[in-house]
Parts: sequence; structure tokens; C-alpha cells
Amino acid sequence: MSVVEELRRTLPAGRLLEDPAGYLHDEAVWAPHGKPIAVVRPHTAEEVQQVVRACVRHQVPVVPRGAGTGLSGGANAVDGGIVLSTEKMTAIREIDVAERLAVVEPGVVNDHLRAACAERGLWYPPDPASAPWSTIGGNVATNAGGLCCVKYGVTRDYVLGLQVVTGTGELVRLGRRTAKGVAGYDLTGLVVGSEGTLGVVTEVTVRLRPARRPERTVAGFFASLADAGRAVAAVSAAGLVPSALELIDRHTLAAVDAWKNMGLSAEADAVLLGRTDAPGEAGEAEAETMLACFTGAGATWAAVSSDVDEAEALFTARRLAYPALERLGRVLTEDVCVPRAAVPVMLEKIEHIGRRHDVHIANVAHAGDGNLHPLLIVRVGDADAEARAEDAFEAILDEAIALGGTVTGEHGVGLLKRDGLRRELAAPVLALHHAVKQALDPHGILNPGKVIETCAPQC
Amino acid sequence: MSVVEELRRTLPAGRLLEDPAGYLHDEAVWAPHGKPIAVVRPHTAEEVQQVVRACVRHQVPVVPRGAGTGLSGGANAVDGGIVLSTEKMTAIREIDVAERLAVVEPGVVNDHLRAACAERGLWYPPDPASAPWSTIGGNVATNAGGLCCVKYGVTRDYVLGLQVVTGTGELVRLGRRTAKGVAGYDLTGLVVGSEGTLGVVTEVTVRLRPARRPERTVAGFFASLADAGRAVAAVSAAGLVPSALELIDRHTLAAVDAWKNMGLSAEADAVLLGRTDAPGEAGEAEAETMLACFTGAGATWAAVSSDVDEAEALFTARRLAYPALERLGRVLTEDVCVPRAAVPVMLEKIEHIGRRHDVHIANVAHAGDGNLHPLLIVRVGDADAEARAEDAFEAILDEAIALGGTVTGEHGVGLLKRDGLRRELAAPVLALHHAVKQALDPHGILNPGKVIETCAPQC
Repeated sequence: MSVVEELRRTLPAGRLLEDPAGYLHDEAVWAPHGKPIAVVRPHTAEEVQQVVRACVRHQVPVVPRGAGTGLSGGANAVDGGIVLSTEKMTAIREIDVAERLAVVEPGVVNDHLRAACAERGLWYPPDPASAPWSTIGGNVATNAGGLCCVKYGVTRDYVLGLQVVTGTGELVRLGRRTAKGVAGYDLTGLVVGSEGTLGVVTEVTVRLRPARRPERTVAGFFASLADAGRAVAAVSAAGLVPSALELIDRHTLAAVDAWKNMGLSAEADAVLLGRTDAPGEAGEAEAETMLACFTGAGATWAAVSSDVDEAEALFTARRLAYPALERLGRVLTEDVCVPRAAVPVMLEKIEHIGRRHDVHIANVAHAGDGNLHPLLIVRVGDADAEARAEDAFEAILDEAIALGGTVTGEHGVGLLKRDGLRRELAAPVLALHHAVKQALDPHGILNPGKVIETCAPQC
Repeated sequence: MSVVEELRRTLPAGRLLEDPAGYLHDEAVWAPHGKPIAVVRPHTAEEVQQVVRACVRHQVPVVPRGAGTGLSGGANAVDGGIVLSTEKMTAIREIDVAERLAVVEPGVVNDHLRAACAERGLWYPPDPASAPWSTIGGNVATNAGGLCCVKYGVTRDYVLGLQVVTGTGELVRLGRRTAKGVAGYDLTGLVVGSEGTLGVVTEVTVRLRPARRPERTVAGFFASLADAGRAVAAVSAAGLVPSALELIDRHTLAAVDAWKNMGLSAEADAVLLGRTDAPGEAGEAEAETMLACFTGAGATWAAVSSDVDEAEALFTARRLAYPALERLGRVLTEDVCVPRAAVPVMLEKIEHIGRRHDVHIANVAHAGDGNLHPLLIVRVGDADAEARAEDAFEAILDEAIALGGTVTGEHGVGLLKRDGLRRELAAPVLALHHAVKQALDPHGILNPGKVIETCAPQC
């Protein structure tokens, strides 16, 4: 009996989809994907375990999938494999106000969790741009970041414990519910960011914070990226830890203008948007210091706003960046992270790579933590431009590595960054990755070929 | 040629000590230790690599050791093994103000790093009680906590990258220097807290924060542990995140009084010491709210102080707890962590266990994160009392597990908590530990027998 036949007979009705349409790939442009034999949508951890056990017995790959909003191909289907979507596991099991934690199923949408926490006066910080659609399971798999992680950290910083189906089909609990704990190896942190290659997450216990205070926004227009870069450095040197510090370059501003006619690109070559959520007078003082940093670095215009609507208007260009650029063609999203002082030089290198490869590259960046998102735009159907963009993509990874950075700040390795990872990590470190993969997935069935090759490093 | 002979010939002069006195064990009372064949004190990462490679070739265990201030036996010598002390590797290589990071050798004393950071307007938060003596390497090995981690997290939260000699003798870099990064598995986090069983740390890159603001201290005297526990719960429910929240019980107060005659035990059955470092008015408001929580929970006396000397005086009893109790006998230090709401009931259980096993148990606790340090005091030379204390020690672990807690909040497993760990973790999770250990230390030479048994879980 085939694995599909077995699952059809043993799982409750409605779990199995034999038409994989809609489950073939995530949102990574140009990442290859295979042809799966089925899609399963379990409702419980026990059903997930049942699927993984069947896959172990039949030696069939299983590709865990959240909402499919990933940008590296981590959820892309594998030939002959099963796609395991956690989209039906959407219960928020518990929000414990006293312990400041929540226990959720992996299919809970990030924004839904945040809303449920807000009702209890609590806050789940990780805020990837995909928060309205992406799920906590996917966020855990990719160790997702976002705007506020410059101050509040990334998903791994909030995951206290996990329930996981292992590569041998065991259903286990890792981590803890307590504020602290050092009982054994940090297997929880190891599974976070492992993109479904070390276990299938069936439940997540996250740490929460008290509801955050209202933010003040500081906007600055700059005549050059160099000036904006100096402003970012000045903010850091002033001892500020902003709750967001975003950069938008002139290509992005022009695309937003071409769509919404906001007149931004006529006024600035780069825009910086900072935020502070320090309370009361201290927040006022931080905003004023940030303003002084912007002005001192040569901002052509800069202002503080504590009005929510006005601040939202200032962030509009940031939010519109992707859709505005997608009007121009297909967008290949980069995700390098460099030391924050290297942001201006990295942006110059990107500009240079764009010219050299004849690729239009716009940039948005989480400037406060050096995480850049160069957006490579290619006219749909232009195969030659695609090839040039792929070359530019790899060239950007090399420059990031050369500057002491990393090929992926928050999107994950998936398929698109696998070659980059091999260039970033020394051979013995890649060998450690293979050893860990072999230890936790001895049958090699968990999302094979993602993050690292499925065979030994030399192959 | 024996491994000692080989190291004597190949290492520079002065690295090898054949008399292991002073290197046999850490500060864990009653943890067994073996008889090592030598002690090496390398000066460089390459010398560490040389030692590990020799140990691989000769199949000789190597026990990494920091300052020996550990409380679980993690640094205890192993029969026929080599103790590798990192005490000579004391360079602070770099403090980068713009990137807010420091690169240090493992032998740097915690307080030395903190002082060097302070000179640059920066702060390294992890503050174990051992900070004047313990080293960053040891802090990394145990994932050390401290007073301020209730707000600022533990060592793992600050380790960006490591240089490590692996179990196969490779010298590798793990992690990154950037603020964010998801390139591959979190091997850095895996090595942190692994107590020298997965690699020997030769360099540590830590994230820093801007210098902290002055703290306000809130002290409260309570007529019962239950009242103090209610005050802790009220602080959490009020949405406060104190920068410290310490509890001292009457047994500890009595010991301090017996030594220093401070008159505390006549006034209170439990003392709570809270701190806030929120800035300006917000800090004032937080201190007042904390005071209201203390008073509302029935404090017999409570007050806020922003005077440094006065605050230090209030914390004197906390600092004197260990030496005061050591005057009464040998002190076996526990380190359980429970959900913070369970602190009062856990303290009751401890009291009960003390009575049942006829063991004198005092308590200090990082109450804000549920991390309790019951201190079991036994008259020196009283073998029967020792046996009773060991039973009480295990009984406390069981109660912590039963309350949803963990056997170790911040001290590590070492030898003393190895049995407790086996009771806390499910068999398949222990099997994952063994698989990871086997993957990263295939020769089984790295601190064997610590954290987990060296043979398979069933043995």
C-alpha cells in the first residue's frame, strides 16, 4: 500500500488533498519546486505524528508548510514528497497573563495571536511584514524578524518551548514554561529557524511582554544614502535603541510615487523612519535626540510625530514599497545583514552590482540592525534579465559576506540561499550542520534539500 | 608516548601542570570528582585545539574549566582525563561601540568585562552572583543568569558568536557579528549551556546594551511567604517588568542577623527587594506601582529608595545570604525554577521537605522569574545529615517538576542534576540529547558524564 493510500485510509476524512495546486511553493521568486504526491492538512499533533510515521516507514519526504509566505523556498514541494500544511491547527490554547506566555498551534496567524494578546494587555513582539498572513509555525521555522526586532529581538527570543514530531516520529516536548531554565541542551532554539528540517512543530509556547506604550515617530529626508547612513550611526552612538529604524531608498520612493504620487522622490534620495517607545519624558527626549541625529547627519527635512495617523502616513511609503515595486515586474527579495556601520557601503555595493548586471534594484532596510532587503525587479518573461538578476543576487551575498555579514538576516536559507550558506560557512561548520541533521532526522525525510544539501558537504 | 608526554613536548613551557590540586572540582558540594592525569592552561585557541586533538588521538577525556565557581559539578575532573583551564586566556579583544558588541577570550572575568564596557558607555547585562570571579567562558558553558535577567535575559541572549574547538579538534567560528542572522542552525545557542560537552569555547562575541540608567529600589517586609508571593504576583499583574525582584526568607534573615545583627528577622518573615531602571518619571511611577503592590499584598513595611547607598544597604542582606549561611555549615545550593505564580506553593513544599527530612533549608529567590535557590545547610562532618540533605535535594527537584518547573534555572546540570534531568525529560528527548552529543562529540571525549550519562539512555 502506498503512503498516500495508507494516509487516506487512516486519517479522518478531509485531511488529504491529492491536488497539490496552491501548495507547490512559497513566495520565493524563481526557487525551484518539485511535484508532491499529496498534501495533508492535519488537525492535531497526533495526526501530524501519524503522517511523519507513515513517511518514515515509506521513506517519503515530508515538507512542513505554514501559510506559504516564505521568501526563500523553504516550503517548496519536493518530488515524490508530501506537503504537510499546518493551516488547520489554528487554536490559541492558552494565554497566561500571570506567567506572560501563550500556547498556540502552529497554524495561528501572527496578527491573530497579537490581537488576542492585546485583549489581555499583553504583546507578542515579532512582527514580520507578513504578519497579517504568516503563521506562528512558519515564523518559528524561519526564526522570523520584523520591524521591532531592532529593540525586541526575533522569534527565537520569544519561543520558550515547542511540541515537535521528530524525524523518527516521536511526539515530544522541548523547552519549558518557566522564565528561566538550563535543563539540557537548547533543542528548542535549535529547532527554531531550522525550516522544518529537524522536526515538525505542532505547538509553540511563546513568552509575551506587557502591552507596549505608544510610539513616537521620527522621519528624516536625506539627499544621499551616505547621509542617511551617518544618521543611523549617530543614533547608535547616542546610545539610543529605537523600536524601529527603517530606511527607504530613492528607487523605492520613485516606485511609490509612480503609483501613489506622494511626491517623495522629488524631496529625498533616502528616507529614514525611526520610532521610540520609551515612556513619557524619556520617549520625548529619545525622539528629540533621534531628530538631532538626523539633522546633524544632514537631513534636508526631519520631524517628530506622536500622532498615530500622522505616523502611519509617514510609514505608508514603507508599507507600499513591495506592492509599488511589484507593479514594475517580478521582485526577487534579498535579505542580507551586515554590521550596522557597514549599511552605507553595502548600499553602494548594491548600487554598483545593479549597474554591473543591468538589474533595477530598489532597497528597503531595517537599517537599525543592518538588515537590508534589496529588491531586484525584473520584467515578467524576460529570461535574460532573470539570469542577470540571479547573478546580481549571488553577487550581493558575496559582498555581504565580505563585509562581515550574513546571507540571510531573517528570511531563512530555504533553497535560494543554500549556495550562499555554503560560501558563508567554513567546511567544518557545514559538516556540523550535516551531523546535527543526521542526528535529528536519521531517515532524511524532513524537508530534504532545504538549508543544506541532502548528501554530504563534499557532494 | 602518553598524551601528557606529548603535550609536555609540544606545548610551550608552563602550560602543563602535573599537580591537579585546585583543579579537581568546582564549588558544588558533594558532587563526585575523578583523578585527572594533568591540567593544561592554554594561552591561545590554537593551543586549545592542540590539546583537544591530542585527546582525540589518545581517546582521553578533556574537562573544560573556567574559574571553577560552578555549583553543579560541571567542571569536576574525570578519572584519567585532562582538565583544560581557560584561565590564561583573558584578553578583551575588542569592544565595538558602533556595533555594540565585545569579543573576548573565555578567561575574562565577568566583572572585568562589565567594567571595560562601562568605560565605553556600554553594558553587558548577565550578572551571576559569581560575577567578581566567574569567567565569560564558564558563564557561556552554563548559560549563567543573575539578578537582572528577570528583565534582561540570560547569557545565551547575549552571545552572538563563538569560536569553538569541536569534538573532532576543528577550530571553527559559529554565529555572527551582525545584529540578526538566520544562516543555518543555531549551533551557537546549542553550545551555550552545554557545559563543555559539545565543544571547547575559545572566543566569545557578546552583544552589549547602552549603559543602564540608575535604578530605584523598592523594599518590602512581609509577615509571611504567602504575602510576599502575592506581592510578586501583583507586580506581574500590574504589567511591571522589574530590573530585579529578589526574595529572602526568614531562615536567611536569621542567619544574617546572627552574623551582622541587623535586626531583620525580628521584623519580617520574608523580604522582597525590587528594582526598576525605567527612566525618569516612568521609573518613579513604576517604583510607586511596585510599592503599591507590596503594600496591597500586606507588607508590614515598604519603601522606595533612589539613593544608591541606601539601596545597597537594602541589598546587603541579599549579598550576605551565602556567607551568613556558610557560617552554619556546608551549603548545598539548589536552583529550581517554577512558574512565577507557583513560587509561594513551592516555598511551602520546600519548608515541608525540610521538616520531613530534618534538614535546615533557607531560601533566596529570583522571585520575579520563579528561580528559587533553596540552601540546604548541613553541619560539617555529619554523614547522616548529609544523606538526609541529598534526599531533600532530590525531593525538591521532584516538587519543581510536579509544579511544571525545571530542575535547574541557571546553574546547569553538571553532575548534581543529572538524575533530576532524567526525571524532567521524556525518554525520547533524552535520546535526542544523546544523538546531538554523538553528532558533535563522536569520540565522546568532551567532558564525558556531564549533563547526560556517557552511555545510551537505557543504561
